[in-house]
Amino acid sequence: MILCVCLNPAIDVTYAVADLTYGATHTVHSVGRRAGGKALNVARVLHQLGEPVLVTGLLGGAEGRAVLADLTDAGIDAEFTAIDDETRRTVTVYDGGEATAFNEPGPVVADAEWRSFRSRYTELLADVMVVAISGSQPPGVPVDACAELTTLAGAAGATVVLDVAGPTLRAALSARPAVVKPNRVELGALVGRELGDADDVLAACRTLVAGGAGSALVSLGADGLIAATPAGAYRVRVPMAMPGNPTGAGDALAAAVARGLQRGDDWPVLLAHGVAVASASVSVRQAGATDEALAARLLADICVETIG
Amino acid sequence: MILCVCLNPAIDVTYAVADLTYGATHTVHSVGRRAGGKALNVARVLHQLGEPVLVTGLLGGAEGRAVLADLTDAGIDAEFTAIDDETRRTVTVYDGGEATAFNEPGPVVADAEWRSFRSRYTELLADVMVVAISGSQPPGVPVDACAELTTLAGAAGATVVLDVAGPTLRAALSARPAVVKPNRVELGALVGRELGDADDVLAACRTLVAGGAGSALVSLGADGLIAATPAGAYRVRVPMAMPGNPTGAGDALAAAVARGLQRGDDWPVLLAHGVAVASASVSVRQAGATDEALAARLLADICVETIG
Repeated sequence: MILCVCLNPAIDVTYAVADLTYGATHTVHSVGRRAGGKALNVARVLHQLGEPVLVTGLLGGAEGRAVLADLTDAGIDAEFTAIDDETRRTVTVYDGGEATAFNEPGPVVADAEWRSFRSRYTELLADVMVVAISGSQPPGVPVDACAELTTLAGAAGATVVLDVAGPTLRAALSARPAVVKPNRVELGALVGRELGDADDVLAACRTLVAGGAGSALVSLGADGLIAATPAGAYRVRVPMAMPGNPTGAGDALAAAVARGLQRGDDWPVLLAHGVAVASASVSVRQAGATDEALAARLLADICVETIG
Repeated sequence: MILCVCLNPAIDVTYAVADLTYGATHTVHSVGRRAGGKALNVARVLHQLGEPVLVTGLLGGAEGRAVLADLTDAGIDAEFTAIDDETRRTVTVYDGGEATAFNEPGPVVADAEWRSFRSRYTELLADVMVVAISGSQPPGVPVDACAELTTLAGAAGATVVLDVAGPTLRAALSARPAVVKPNRVELGALVGRELGDADDVLAACRTLVAGGAGSALVSLGADGLIAATPAGAYRVRVPMAMPGNPTGAGDALAAAVARGLQRGDDWPVLLAHGVAVASASVSVRQAGATDEALAARLLADICVETIG
């Protein structure tokens, strides 16, 4: 079973308006609501791919209950630790052009609530081979929370795929996660420079590996993926850029990587499947899903090249 | 007692962000939540002025419970009819410049729910001299809802202050509300032309009186107020423009007008008090409150002129 850790889930609210105008009052024509958060997207893709998955994390209040109801409706097993403060919302405004998003920081988590979650998480690890930890963490959760969860997973013999950013990722490297998966901007922020060509991205990935990560994967979007792994360095090229919605493609990649680790795939196979599932996800309107048939077709034309 | 009717209350959410940029994803630095809706602001100002007030309307779900809790915390009596669908939110984004707002349309109200509210409203009218109806109405409530509520109030011997707009106001005129209080833009939309000087505004007010309203009041903001009343037409001038937040000034005016009707004030007195309370409300950061001491000082310099 793969355990997906969502410390800061959200109700993702979408507003459709006529024209988003700074300083104006807008009538919202339609309101969408859906449980969100990167780890929930990872769990949805794994569930779609037929992998047994359990979602855990922190939930509070009416919004928290709405997150749980949404997962239950999707047939995804979840076991969250209850907190007093309210689970957050994100609001994304669509006007037919670009999406403008507002992400609430999340609930304030008390020490005792964090300890309670950590304790239950440790119990859940008994049945788990792979842990996927993705997304932001709410206020009150210590900055080394992901480091701690990675160490606990390691002690239980589980492998960790970590898709977090900033100080959280920096703090977690020494806990030796099997895979870290920052995006290009996050990776640049971490190594403290704007990244250039593929060689430069690979050098930055190797910095993360030198810092403790087992592997570092960075998507270049339509330009494929760069990976520094224990088996070598790879560049994965996609046959064509997929038109569609790139939101959630990184989560689809994390899901496919977690599945590959669970199956014990070799790195070239794992990476090719990861890029296929992620590329195919772009053609699906909503984040947290991929097009399996398209992923299978893309796989034939994906090229995994040894580099560096 | 003054009855405030809020058919479409909201949880007004405020987001503070660094710079609102179209197409960007924003981290929300602070989240504010407060029960909102124009009629709730009217009730808050009346409560502040020491007038016995009861709020009624339609509430549903967790957001509805939050609205009720907020009113209870403020010491304001409320008796709402429960509906199945969820009370709406509004989201206003502040970045240090102008406010950008997104107003959800509101819950879908079932026929039976509307009838249930109307029946309870009729009972509440037994103890009421003045009814203040303000704000939008949610989907499912008939367009002639305010007309119906005005007719029922009239039959019970109560006087109605109506601050609604568009087709709702148009439909309600023939039900003979004592006062209608559109803003200048709403009045222009109703008479089908862009309004010019004070004479033109007065002519438009008289159109509403000819349509059935007892009086029509239109604020010109810092330029004062125009009123067509049974006692004559008036222009009320304020001594100076107040710096501050004009949101909710119209609701403060509606509250003061409702209080004046309840007290049986003559029109010039009622209008002067209304403009004083509304102007002073601008100096208070949050809508739904005024500065009583400032209102008393302003009153001395407010000039009510007979016109037309």
